[in-house]
Amino acid sequence: MNHLEELNTPCALIDVERMQANILRMQQRMNQLGVRFRPHVKTSKSLPVTQAQLDAGASGITVSTLKEAEQFFADGITDILYAVSISPGRLSQALSLRRRGCDLKIITDSVAAAKHVAAFGRTNGEAFEVWIEIDTDDHRSGIKPGASSLIEVAQLLQEAGMVVGGVMTHAGASYGCDTQAALEAMAEQERAGAVHAAQRLREAGFKCPVVSVGSTPTALAARRLDGVTEVRAGVYVFFDLVMHNVGVCSTDEIALSVLTTVIGHQEEKGWAIVDAGWMAMSRDRGTQDQKRDFALGQVCTASGQVLEGYLVSSANQEHGIISRVGESDTDIAQRFPIGTQLRILPIHACATAAQHPEYVALGPDGSSQTWPRFYGW
Amino acid sequence: MNHLEELNTPCALIDVERMQANILRMQQRMNQLGVRFRPHVKTSKSLPVTQAQLDAGASGITVSTLKEAEQFFADGITDILYAVSISPGRLSQALSLRRRGCDLKIITDSVAAAKHVAAFGRTNGEAFEVWIEIDTDDHRSGIKPGASSLIEVAQLLQEAGMVVGGVMTHAGASYGCDTQAALEAMAEQERAGAVHAAQRLREAGFKCPVVSVGSTPTALAARRLDGVTEVRAGVYVFFDLVMHNVGVCSTDEIALSVLTTVIGHQEEKGWAIVDAGWMAMSRDRGTQDQKRDFALGQVCTASGQVLEGYLVSSANQEHGIISRVGESDTDIAQRFPIGTQLRILPIHACATAAQHPEYVALGPDGSSQTWPRFYGW
Repeated sequence: MNHLEELNTPCALIDVERMQANILRMQQRMNQLGVRFRPHVKTSKSLPVTQAQLDAGASGITVSTLKEAEQFFADGITDILYAVSISPGRLSQALSLRRRGCDLKIITDSVAAAKHVAAFGRTNGEAFEVWIEIDTDDHRSGIKPGASSLIEVAQLLQEAGMVVGGVMTHAGASYGCDTQAALEAMAEQERAGAVHAAQRLREAGFKCPVVSVGSTPTALAARRLDGVTEVRAGVYVFFDLVMHNVGVCSTDEIALSVLTTVIGHQEEKGWAIVDAGWMAMSRDRGTQDQKRDFALGQVCTASGQVLEGYLVSSANQEHGIISRVGESDTDIAQRFPIGTQLRILPIHACATAAQHPEYVALGPDGSSQTWPRFYGW
Repeated sequence: MNHLEELNTPCALIDVERMQANILRMQQRMNQLGVRFRPHVKTSKSLPVTQAQLDAGASGITVSTLKEAEQFFADGITDILYAVSISPGRLSQALSLRRRGCDLKIITDSVAAAKHVAAFGRTNGEAFEVWIEIDTDDHRSGIKPGASSLIEVAQLLQEAGMVVGGVMTHAGASYGCDTQAALEAMAEQERAGAVHAAQRLREAGFKCPVVSVGSTPTALAARRLDGVTEVRAGVYVFFDLVMHNVGVCSTDEIALSVLTTVIGHQEEKGWAIVDAGWMAMSRDRGTQDQKRDFALGQVCTASGQVLEGYLVSSANQEHGIISRVGESDTDIAQRFPIGTQLRILPIHACATAAQHPEYVALGPDGSSQTWPRFYGW
């Protein structure tokens, strides 16, 4: 533990052994299911993490911003899917990436949005590769697999000289599941919806080579992926307490945590105050409506052992309040004296990681490295 | 509006005219009340904003991290209060700042924490200036004004050669007020508690030159500040929807917003989807328990006119969902076509600003500048 004591807190720790196990688990599943795997790098926004995913066998990456595309393209990664409907004002940036040699794919999910892409592509003589987003779970975005607008969008794009590369979907509703049966059903719904959309496009004369599906829960629950060519998932690389509640990981598999130090107490309230506030943890309350509420994070010892019942119960910008669920711990000042280091498991790894300019990557041999991460748009 | 259309979204906008009015309003109040003003720079973490506060008459700054102290000291600001109880592991950084000429003040609120400061200061021959944090609202941290440990802490520090610079308090409970009477009562409670603590220290033989109080609501509500030497406040520089609900600003005074673009719709649900998700807005739900819930933000036109009833009702990482409160707007795709720019007023300016690497500062003449901001620890 001597090494951790030298770290300034709060800081974001990656347990590299756990991360590698998470990467291997997912890649092996994908290999067994016979599909390519395209990790979503919005979770880490860090080259060493992404490189570990590619080294394990991933094919290309998924990004949530063009900033991610720019950064990873600069690092030599060319096969990139931008999995958010592109704003018309960002088309010139997508064009520039493609002209520089980036094999950037963009998505669309409506006639109105497709018209912007088609008009811009035609004006600039660029055959954008466009994947059509399918709504398989009535969750957020996409065209319903059976909707007439699906064919209309494909025709519109093709007539303007764009490449209809395939279909993609994201069953975000899987985050609301918490049984194996529900997860498997959601994975099958996601698969079947995407494959159905692709079949309709093929019947209408489009090649539609790619059928891309995925979310961490469905990727880990799917029993078969017939007709799917690739899967995307992001948060599995670190996991978090939301995923624990969904049922796809244990707390021992969560590879991201925040190292913090006790800076005060309110003994009569049973509080220890730590230097990880919402700035270090994020304000994500993703477990609030799940079967177990971890408030703003699960408290562990500095070495990572879960301290059952101790949560970050509330937070201000640079103050986190640790308390025991149920009966107040009036011995908390003796239990966690000032200067005590603790680790906090995150509610939502994407949100917690986003608050940190860098990770401290801890190797199994006790060594550590600083891994930079970026933010912004 | 032509200029805004050239901006890449999402981005954080500062309305400089509003910001200057907010700065002037606060500084004039402080001048009238006869106290110094020490703005909390954790809200903006940006030199041009802080410089505007100093130019208007502020005396020194308050910081929430030593990173802020390092950055602003590098910019030439020396009078700095670090207003979070210092972690023992950070004392060497505080020492380094002081040795380099930074007039850094630190705080403590317990015998246990004071012992760490005293031991470290004595070992290193450094007379740290320490302010004792007072708990005037039973909210988070501090020693109660009448507690015996107040004198004990001061004695312990003085015997070790530290400088007992004064007392400070922050009535964070003022965020829970929403009437003028409650705000004035909380301001008086904050003032009276801090002054009482200072009087007890003086009666015990300590000079206690500084009596520092403050929060945006109490600073704007206080009717008198007898015995107080300085006030601190942070979020007033931008204001936000939490402060609107507290009753200390109108929406027309909110100087920070996020510019976003419509990227899709779910017409039957009455949704417009924009490119400002929680990554751009934060997950702060600070108005949830207030008298009016603004969900994740209030939607305005691109030029800033409030669109009554339209909120960012939910969000994923890079998707925000805009909908109308009450009756669903099934014409939303016509009302806000793809490519439409909108501005979102933030729930909590400190949290929203923290998501952005820079601000676009819009002058009253339509000009704009990029103002950098930093993050991390």
